[in-house]
Amino acid sequence: MVKLAFGSFGDSFSVGSLKSYLAEFIATLLFVFAGVGSAVAYGKLTSAALDPAGLVAVAIAHAFALFVGVSIAANISGGHLNPAVTLGLAIGGNITILTGIFYWIAQLLGSIVASFLLKFVTQLDVPTHTLASGVGAIEGVVFEIIITFALVYTVYATAADPKKGSLGIIAPIAIGFIVGANILAAGPFSGGSMNPARSFGPAVASGDFTDNWIYWVGPLIGGGLAGLVYGDIFIGSYGQVPASEDYA
Amino acid sequence: MVKLAFGSFGDSFSVGSLKSYLAEFIATLLFVFAGVGSAVAYGKLTSAALDPAGLVAVAIAHAFALFVGVSIAANISGGHLNPAVTLGLAIGGNITILTGIFYWIAQLLGSIVASFLLKFVTQLDVPTHTLASGVGAIEGVVFEIIITFALVYTVYATAADPKKGSLGIIAPIAIGFIVGANILAAGPFSGGSMNPARSFGPAVASGDFTDNWIYWVGPLIGGGLAGLVYGDIFIGSYGQVPASEDYA
Amino acid sequence: MVKLAFGSFGDSFSVGSLKSYLAEFIATLLFVFAGVGSAVAYGKLTSAALDPAGLVAVAIAHAFALFVGVSIAANISGGHLNPAVTLGLAIGGNITILTGIFYWIAQLLGSIVASFLLKFVTQLDVPTHTLASGVGAIEGVVFEIIITFALVYTVYATAADPKKGSLGIIAPIAIGFIVGANILAAGPFSGGSMNPARSFGPAVASGDFTDNWIYWVGPLIGGGLAGLVYGDIFIGSYGQVPASEDYA
Amino acid sequence: MVKLAFGSFGDSFSVGSLKSYLAEFIATLLFVFAGVGSAVAYGKLTSAALDPAGLVAVAIAHAFALFVGVSIAANISGGHLNPAVTLGLAIGGNITILTGIFYWIAQLLGSIVASFLLKFVTQLDVPTHTLASGVGAIEGVVFEIIITFALVYTVYATAADPKKGSLGIIAPIAIGFIVGANILAAGPFSGGSMNPARSFGPAVASGDFTDNWIYWVGPLIGGGLAGLVYGDIFIGSYGQVPASEDYA
Repeated sequence: MVKLAFGSFGDSFSVGSLKSYLAEFIATLLFVFAGVGSAVAYGKLTSAALDPAGLVAVAIAHAFALFVGVSIAANISGGHLNPAVTLGLAIGGNITILTGIFYWIAQLLGSIVASFLLKFVTQLDVPTHTLASGVGAIEGVVFEIIITFALVYTVYATAADPKKGSLGIIAPIAIGFIVGANILAAGPFSGGSMNPARSFGPAVASGDFTDNWIYWVGPLIGGGLAGLVYGDIFIGSYGQVPASEDYA
Repeated sequence: MVKLAFGSFGDSFSVGSLKSYLAEFIATLLFVFAGVGSAVAYGKLTSAALDPAGLVAVAIAHAFALFVGVSIAANISGGHLNPAVTLGLAIGGNITILTGIFYWIAQLLGSIVASFLLKFVTQLDVPTHTLASGVGAIEGVVFEIIITFALVYTVYATAADPKKGSLGIIAPIAIGFIVGANILAAGPFSGGSMNPARSFGPAVASGDFTDNWIYWVGPLIGGGLAGLVYGDIFIGSYGQVPASEDYA
Repeated sequence: MVKLAFGSFGDSFSVGSLKSYLAEFIATLLFVFAGVGSAVAYGKLTSAALDPAGLVAVAIAHAFALFVGVSIAANISGGHLNPAVTLGLAIGGNITILTGIFYWIAQLLGSIVASFLLKFVTQLDVPTHTLASGVGAIEGVVFEIIITFALVYTVYATAADPKKGSLGIIAPIAIGFIVGANILAAGPFSGGSMNPARSFGPAVASGDFTDNWIYWVGPLIGGGLAGLVYGDIFIGSYGQVPASEDYA
Repeated sequence: MVKLAFGSFGDSFSVGSLKSYLAEFIATLLFVFAGVGSAVAYGKLTSAALDPAGLVAVAIAHAFALFVGVSIAANISGGHLNPAVTLGLAIGGNITILTGIFYWIAQLLGSIVASFLLKFVTQLDVPTHTLASGVGAIEGVVFEIIITFALVYTVYATAADPKKGSLGIIAPIAIGFIVGANILAAGPFSGGSMNPARSFGPAVASGDFTDNWIYWVGPLIGGGLAGLVYGDIFIGSYGQVPASEDYA
């Protein structure tokens, strides 16, 4: 059951909301800077194609940086850093559409600024997410759907679920580490984005939008599905009975 | 002292129980997808035999993904994701046999679906657990017994023990990371499964059941032993005196 | 709004303050010993230039050791281990200037002693932070500004913010891991110091101060900026209204 | 100020104490099995000398396995797994000498059994800690003193200090990760033991005691020093005034 709420116009422009957009902008910027930066660094260290050590480096950089990015924004904006997370939470009624749109803008701007900063400090091109040669568009989209489903499902179970309990304490670690694990699987295929903002910034900075649509369609479908499944089945009540109280 | 309980038929079909099976299915699916996916990714990046960097990649992927998988199911199903864990907990009387059987089915289905999805999105074969050449069946079974004992003992000490205290907060991390550490040891020998579901799904998807029995016998013995040892000695009381209260 | 406070002379020489300086000295020593030690170890294992596996080793050593260093000093000195963190917190009014100066001295001494100890136990030279060939001073300084901003912003959001809540529990992990992520990005360019003390000790022990000013200017500007931004916008109140209470 | 206490004979043979010895035995066994196992695995994967990827594998295996080993014994025995930790805590008066001796026996037996089990399941020799060629005994001992000081100081600050507060929640992670960081520094020099039990088991199983005294002398001095420094300065009161309450 989609629970999209539009929200009042004023709410999206309160001091608290403006701080939230700034927190999303800064946290996404710092996450993308370290994550994409690790890919630039790999490219500088070796001219060879991606190898297992490089995949570990890139996966760990994303895992650690996203964990921290979520942590530093958690108490202010909720720590989305990702339009697919924002969409998934909007579908479960956890954020209004209007506020969500401003979150998207903040996330995209953060990623774009991070990518241009990286270009300046490294004096190198920033690599973009593209499908590995031999990987079809359908396979790539489905890959991104599955791994983004995993990410947004994790956000729900550990952070957005009112019954999360002490899991909330380690939620930012879980959110960062599922991205690290999924990059170790998806890296040599779809690239393992799970995040339209993470893919969009480098595309803008390099002017190369090849395959960029994949990283909008896949993550948004996967994140939306996770919001539907988790929100309806594990948070939403059946009939009027708050059956889910059993797990509190 | 084995404390197996059969449980009432109705309990295993309550709304809460059905949600538990679904939570186990989804969490196992996402764990196996990332874990086995990292092995497929390694195979794509290099045609060479497993090397230390590849072992690190696979171990970290399993550690991170299992940590997250346990986290996202913890408040709903308890976060087993593994028939050996379910058996170990059943032996300590923490889950009824009937419910445990449905857990097994959900875990196996999750792993099978994950393996077919991986086959589709990568268009490659999924690798199965087999003994490395030169490793005998007895050595393989004993290896899996020891490392699964470690895993299920960790589940007991950090999650199922009523005296766990604040350890419960980091339990999912401990459960994921003991699997990562054990894969770094067992990877080049038995493969380091510790989980019949983790091994069964890729076997079904590839149609190759070579050595698959190893990953049922070893983990189930190891997990059962851990349930007996921890449940009897560290949770169970001696005589009538709740001596274990000393550690609260 | 800079909130620098000088503090009374007596406060900086209380028993509690002296213990704080000792705690900073020991924690910085142990952090630098492991961090720089991992770079010496890499140099011993291979005569080749930095490669991705080596970058992972150095990044993980710094991440783990800083996490621990912050933890072991947290309850005594606050766990800065870094003049840029101390400056950033002084700008937000969280530590007086006089006490901050003693923190700097303790941190620098800790790093110097660690570097000489490393030189003795390894009988090798300790590597210093320098710009990679082809990286200009401006790019290097900006790189260090950005990544130190990320570090000190993380310190504020997870440790110094009165609204941090349960994030405080995982603050030391977040602080260590943002350094690990940033080294994976900056390693092959500016080196990824984020910490004048971390860079100064090896420079003293090796007698080579090439580029050392970069690791004072960049981190102090980045850390100061983070103190200004976070302290003013997310902690400081607008007018008299404690609007930030919304996020408690 | 050394606070060694002998303790009553009966206390060391209570049901609770016997469970503690068993918990130390099991946890040390499982830690050594994964840690030493990762070194055996590296040796199987490549006949080359240790390289950075292998050092990462061994360091992560020890970090993860020690974190888990400490966790699973924490509520029963305190989770020492290491004679140097037990000595350091005895010097601070946290455990009696008699009980400490039984801890040592349990730890040594756990390591010996783990090493023989590894020999059986891998059908390979277990590698022992020795000084790398070119590293002198004094340098090796000093290296082990420093890194074991770091480990036991971490145990005190995060677990044994009554003022540890919420740091106690992440103490097992900190204890495991300081060992991982230190192995990344010490691996190619002294080996990075920090633990007489960890070194003794493989020596017994292989019958090769070369350099084994290094891993008794260094860790016991380092651990004892940490107990003295932390116990006296940061826990012990000056005069009668509980000045340290300031940091609660």
